[in-house]
Amino acid sequence: MKYRVDLNCDMGESFGTYKMGNDEEILDFVTSANIACGFHAGDPATMRKTVKLALEKGVGIGAHPGFQDLTGFGRRNLLVSPQEAYELVVYQIGALYGFVKAEGGVMQHVKPHGALFNMAATDAALSEAIAEAVYAVNPELVLFGLSGSEIIKAGTKIGLRTANEVFSDRTYQTDGTLTSRKEANALITDTDTAIQQVVRMIKEGVVTSTVGAEVSILADTVCIHGDGIHALDFARRISETLKNSQIDVRKIQDLK
Amino acid sequence: MKYRVDLNCDMGESFGTYKMGNDEEILDFVTSANIACGFHAGDPATMRKTVKLALEKGVGIGAHPGFQDLTGFGRRNLLVSPQEAYELVVYQIGALYGFVKAEGGVMQHVKPHGALFNMAATDAALSEAIAEAVYAVNPELVLFGLSGSEIIKAGTKIGLRTANEVFSDRTYQTDGTLTSRKEANALITDTDTAIQQVVRMIKEGVVTSTVGAEVSILADTVCIHGDGIHALDFARRISETLKNSQIDVRKIQDLK
Amino acid sequence: MKYRVDLNCDMGESFGTYKMGNDEEILDFVTSANIACGFHAGDPATMRKTVKLALEKGVGIGAHPGFQDLTGFGRRNLLVSPQEAYELVVYQIGALYGFVKAEGGVMQHVKPHGALFNMAATDAALSEAIAEAVYAVNPELVLFGLSGSEIIKAGTKIGLRTANEVFSDRTYQTDGTLTSRKEANALITDTDTAIQQVVRMIKEGVVTSTVGAEVSILADTVCIHGDGIHALDFARRISETLKNSQIDVRKIQDLK
Amino acid sequence: MKYRVDLNCDMGESFGTYKMGNDEEILDFVTSANIACGFHAGDPATMRKTVKLALEKGVGIGAHPGFQDLTGFGRRNLLVSPQEAYELVVYQIGALYGFVKAEGGVMQHVKPHGALFNMAATDAALSEAIAEAVYAVNPELVLFGLSGSEIIKAGTKIGLRTANEVFSDRTYQTDGTLTSRKEANALITDTDTAIQQVVRMIKEGVVTSTVGAEVSILADTVCIHGDGIHALDFARRISETLKNSQIDVRKIQDLK
Repeated sequence: MKYRVDLNCDMGESFGTYKMGNDEEILDFVTSANIACGFHAGDPATMRKTVKLALEKGVGIGAHPGFQDLTGFGRRNLLVSPQEAYELVVYQIGALYGFVKAEGGVMQHVKPHGALFNMAATDAALSEAIAEAVYAVNPELVLFGLSGSEIIKAGTKIGLRTANEVFSDRTYQTDGTLTSRKEANALITDTDTAIQQVVRMIKEGVVTSTVGAEVSILADTVCIHGDGIHALDFARRISETLKNSQIDVRKIQDLK
Repeated sequence: MKYRVDLNCDMGESFGTYKMGNDEEILDFVTSANIACGFHAGDPATMRKTVKLALEKGVGIGAHPGFQDLTGFGRRNLLVSPQEAYELVVYQIGALYGFVKAEGGVMQHVKPHGALFNMAATDAALSEAIAEAVYAVNPELVLFGLSGSEIIKAGTKIGLRTANEVFSDRTYQTDGTLTSRKEANALITDTDTAIQQVVRMIKEGVVTSTVGAEVSILADTVCIHGDGIHALDFARRISETLKNSQIDVRKIQDLK
Repeated sequence: MKYRVDLNCDMGESFGTYKMGNDEEILDFVTSANIACGFHAGDPATMRKTVKLALEKGVGIGAHPGFQDLTGFGRRNLLVSPQEAYELVVYQIGALYGFVKAEGGVMQHVKPHGALFNMAATDAALSEAIAEAVYAVNPELVLFGLSGSEIIKAGTKIGLRTANEVFSDRTYQTDGTLTSRKEANALITDTDTAIQQVVRMIKEGVVTSTVGAEVSILADTVCIHGDGIHALDFARRISETLKNSQIDVRKIQDLK
Repeated sequence: MKYRVDLNCDMGESFGTYKMGNDEEILDFVTSANIACGFHAGDPATMRKTVKLALEKGVGIGAHPGFQDLTGFGRRNLLVSPQEAYELVVYQIGALYGFVKAEGGVMQHVKPHGALFNMAATDAALSEAIAEAVYAVNPELVLFGLSGSEIIKAGTKIGLRTANEVFSDRTYQTDGTLTSRKEANALITDTDTAIQQVVRMIKEGVVTSTVGAEVSILADTVCIHGDGIHALDFARRISETLKNSQIDVRKIQDLK
């Protein structure tokens, strides 16, 4: 097949007695799992279980490091220095590595979470610190980040493989950035529209911005959501539609 | 030389703006460093700095996993299940591994901390879970534990190299256990007495219990303390005395 | 009415993005709410919301202090000193007081949570420390604890009003203690049996132990559970049955 | 005396086994203590001890709420919503209230800490949320904040007494703000210069900016630092110099 893409989803976000997501079911449809590492979500027991499930289902395993802000689920900007970002990323990749190694697997990628992901997208120094952290722990890891953003540049610069990530359920601006969630038209709520946006990004390398412009975009991996009552149904539908559109859906390490 | 021993010390116990210990200076006298992993003490910045220092000084690096009880410094018993112990040990070894790998080093050992160390000494199931965790992450790691205790047995049983640890400043009972800190004679406060107890444990394999009995004991590694105003002086003196007593003081991986 | 009882339920156990329980609905059937204070569960936003709801529904508000062990939901024994117990109880009552005061209400009671509740039931020193903490912050507060246990004795001794708590869904031993959850017959799974046990405890002051003995028991307040799919239905049924059995169901401060 | 001022200092910043500051000694020279509440620093044991000491020495007690970022000591900006700020302030005032009440004292004031203090100085919505929180828990509390800043305005607007805070060891800009710590001339390192700046702010109501302009400033309370080797000496000297300058040094509740 000529076209190819990876489907990723955040996983392992339960904490202690608190449950989140439908990891076991979602893993049947995605090809890469971004596993929380205990800072914004996740705990050792959840990490172990999630790594084990991902390995059983042949899904690529990635560390999903975030800010140490469990109350805010890592979604609130925290003004860390690049050095602090480096350190928290090394720590969290390592912590997940422990479980991957213990279960006999290999780690595939790293995707920053939440506010760290968003801040890095436009902050070159922060992105470089994150890329250095990933490279220092293991230069074979693939760095996931917002398509075309600073973190992709930083990863490429240091010599990491990168994966340009696109979103199915978010609209885009003419400069290629995501429409802010504060805007009324930030989200795509219609499933078919969401999936067709993804198919077009993969096959044509373009997305239509909110003002109707055609914008070039790279789509190596598509982020889908694992919680919410429709998550499982959406995962199934996008997986099937992509495959029916002659797009090879595989984990990133098999694509590169 | 006929006799040999490792000198270990807990390190990297600072946290954020809080400083503890004299790591940089103590590292000149010890051969193995047990580095806190962020649960009972330590944070990513401290871990990075401590790993770097230990590598520069050629000191063996070990993970020092403890309970997630920063307020209690990991010294309060927490009734975890063996599975929970396994998971928290895997997590913390992994987290430290991130920094060791990033700094280009190799991890040498694992020594449980505080209440986890004490509970494991007499709890076979807990010890087996800890030994399994260490083995699962890396079977080359040396497991440190109280000389002759359950954790040494569990490590040996699963196939790990172990290091029987003795204490210079604690008195012993006739059954080979440490005198409880609740007893008036638990601590040895005289430096010369403390050091001579260690020399004798290494050379003769015996220690005199509080009631005067000769007790067999294995001394692969000696624990010394890194904080307190006399810590540095004690470290210097014990290191010199051991060397002057024809005892080869080397990190455990060079001894075994 | 001749008979009277309070119905209490643990509340405010959500944390950040994690949801737990059906607080809003359960509050229609209980008369006292034990609100988590941020150590074992709960966070400032959840505490505020839960206090507000309880006040709107006229339900008695209580602090529900627990160990600072979010991962273990405060259910794992932590060997704190009596002084540490005193301090963590004062802190948590105070934290909840902030929200009660801000919302214009008055705090009614304190009920220790999980492992702290269980440990206190048989530990006089721990119970006295908890009772002192409650008394020191506000001697008008009612102290909830396992019926007839050490904490009830400690509360009475210091001059607090106490509430002997019974469980609808747990079986009892001949000495008045709960059957350990490790035993097969610890739980009462049949709803009618559970409710009739409670009615009998209230009206006759006795419970039948697992070996058939009649055991005297005081039932000032009944604990029901707020999570699980049947929680709401059980709350409705026990509330209705008690009222239909000529038992006055009111919050503890209106009963005493 | 015609002139009057309060001297405040951050206190109770130790945590578990980690010690910070010279609280007991500094309390001999200051008139108001801002006590950490367990989020950015402090723990229940430290809070209890610090409240007790402050009461013994007749020093005004204040809550010092900060972000829940122990690793960063509450000094890193965290983008909380005004509602989240309200909630974390209510929680922390309440927690400290528990100890003040238990020790038989009365709380005097609230001073936001670190990044929360700095962010509030220029953010009206955040300041209003903080002022509402303080007012909701107790409208008698005095709100401390950067002299002339948004938080002083928000406090005044809602009906709280406020205390305009000045710094002895920081330089000022012509608009009345502090010179950023990123600038070389942000700090005043000479003790005499620092103290004379304070005397002039109190007596003349002016401070000379870094470019030589005379700037009007209100000085109700002066912040001094409690840690560092010179802290105690500085506290003694500024206290003595103010008293020798016919300035009445008293806690804020006795001044207003």
